[in-house]
Amino acid sequence: MSGQDPLKRYRSTIERGLRAALAREGALARIGRYHIGLEDEQGQSSAAFGKFLRPAIALFVAEDLGGHPEGVLPAALGLELIHSFSLVHDDIQDQDETRRGRPAVWTLWGVYEAINAGDYLHALATDSALRAGAQAAAELTRATASMIEGQSLDLSFEMRFVGEEEYVEIVDRKTGALFSCAFALGGICAGANEDVLVQLRSLGRSLGRAFQIQDDALGIWGDGEAFGKPIGSDIRRRKKSYPLAAVHPRTEGEQQQRLEAIYADESVSDEDVAWVVELMEGLGVRADVERAVDRHSSEAAEILRALPFSDAGQKELEALIERLARRDR
Amino acid sequence: MSGQDPLKRYRSTIERGLRAALAREGALARIGRYHIGLEDEQGQSSAAFGKFLRPAIALFVAEDLGGHPEGVLPAALGLELIHSFSLVHDDIQDQDETRRGRPAVWTLWGVYEAINAGDYLHALATDSALRAGAQAAAELTRATASMIEGQSLDLSFEMRFVGEEEYVEIVDRKTGALFSCAFALGGICAGANEDVLVQLRSLGRSLGRAFQIQDDALGIWGDGEAFGKPIGSDIRRRKKSYPLAAVHPRTEGEQQQRLEAIYADESVSDEDVAWVVELMEGLGVRADVERAVDRHSSEAAEILRALPFSDAGQKELEALIERLARRDR
Repeated sequence: MSGQDPLKRYRSTIERGLRAALAREGALARIGRYHIGLEDEQGQSSAAFGKFLRPAIALFVAEDLGGHPEGVLPAALGLELIHSFSLVHDDIQDQDETRRGRPAVWTLWGVYEAINAGDYLHALATDSALRAGAQAAAELTRATASMIEGQSLDLSFEMRFVGEEEYVEIVDRKTGALFSCAFALGGICAGANEDVLVQLRSLGRSLGRAFQIQDDALGIWGDGEAFGKPIGSDIRRRKKSYPLAAVHPRTEGEQQQRLEAIYADESVSDEDVAWVVELMEGLGVRADVERAVDRHSSEAAEILRALPFSDAGQKELEALIERLARRDR
Repeated sequence: MSGQDPLKRYRSTIERGLRAALAREGALARIGRYHIGLEDEQGQSSAAFGKFLRPAIALFVAEDLGGHPEGVLPAALGLELIHSFSLVHDDIQDQDETRRGRPAVWTLWGVYEAINAGDYLHALATDSALRAGAQAAAELTRATASMIEGQSLDLSFEMRFVGEEEYVEIVDRKTGALFSCAFALGGICAGANEDVLVQLRSLGRSLGRAFQIQDDALGIWGDGEAFGKPIGSDIRRRKKSYPLAAVHPRTEGEQQQRLEAIYADESVSDEDVAWVVELMEGLGVRADVERAVDRHSSEAAEILRALPFSDAGQKELEALIERLARRDR
């Protein structure tokens, strides 16, 4: 392997592939191009800004294990389109008005058309994945069903409190399923046997846990001054997350009542946000969250070492895992 | 062929297959079983009441053209699951509170979970179709993308008026795509060549037009006294349809202004409903709508005669076309 960061190496291939997959007439393809960042609101071509993390993993794994990246590309594009469809529907459900600094699809085209746009991306994803063969398409479809179940569980989490263990089960579906799929698609393309595929899926699951818990941590403790995400923003949005799943069982009495009242309220005051942040600090949650990220990224690294990657491939994937678990935005 | 109505012949096979496809744990599979009518609101098993028209056509075509119905069954079930997913999302968009006489999914589980439930049925549909092979899955996926485009066009139709020609283009997508797919899946399973597949898809498109326009007619002129659907119910719901696409270009001046005002209003009075019905009668729309149904079902019958079905198969499909175009509910 070339030693170059996998996310950079395959970026232009993936972007070109997505442009081709979405080069269709009609309102929904246009919304898809906007959502992925291939076009601006006026329909003018723009530089894509997504990380394309999942398809890059699929391409990297395929190539390092001896497959042809072109063989897995249609499935890798399908995976990115599934991820994109899930974000369009997720933004509706979370009432998130922005996505990557731009207005979310539902705020521009309405909830009903945003439902259609997500559905359309879902269908285009399958269409693309089928070009990589039935096994790859079936892998992606199973992961998609699991991810959607995760969305449903996440929605039910909005209405109650769950502990860390149950939260991790939700994460395995809502985030882990597509990460697992990224690794497995690479393996399928390279002709890996079922034992290797099982390990590749496990690697993706552990990485998904580390990634999501770190994501949740950034939502509470911010990203430093670099990107301007303020402390406690996910508390203000009353977004349930790993730190909340960790802190809730440690509270009791009036403390627990106040915590539950804050998450039941329509709006959250600055004082409430500060109180929850302090509560988490005081009960040792921040350190525990960091430890959980460490644990899951170490698990991922351990599974990685037993897999038949090249030496260079091992190093690059280990660096990628470390970077994703340590990222500050 | 046995001479028995295709809809009855395959009914129990399809129902059994759907129960198996949805025999999964979790909230979304349960909602799917409820929506399809396999379970009641309490999760108790109930007799399904859907017509299963599309999968029955796929099975009938496959068998009559010399294929094995079991070969096409997973794709036929996938087709019914796609149809089901589209209804779950469609009911949200149309704010329809009932579906087949029971509360619509979104009224019981909320809009957000209904989005997930539709997404989940979509993924299960692909999962099932893949068991019939990549060609069948690709046929279903293309039809799904086209159907979703039809939903989007239908939504834009809610905000403006279109003529008959444009309306038929919408129908070809929102209804025709899945009918075409039903016939094509049967052909694929029987090993039909591309020429035959093209004709099978055309047959489905013509049948889809006759079916949808008749559906629209029932929404205006009711279904007689048998099922209690009142005259003008789709006018009261301000649902745009073929009769409206036909009447709007024939109006002018104050008449057109009043028509447009009625469809722009939040609620429609009894007087308004009666006025629109009278307007349609007076401008000859009812007779024209009947002629359009005749024209498209005749087209379907003509395409049918050139296809390599058995004599008995020809007769049964012709009777089915006639019955669907003449149905009173």
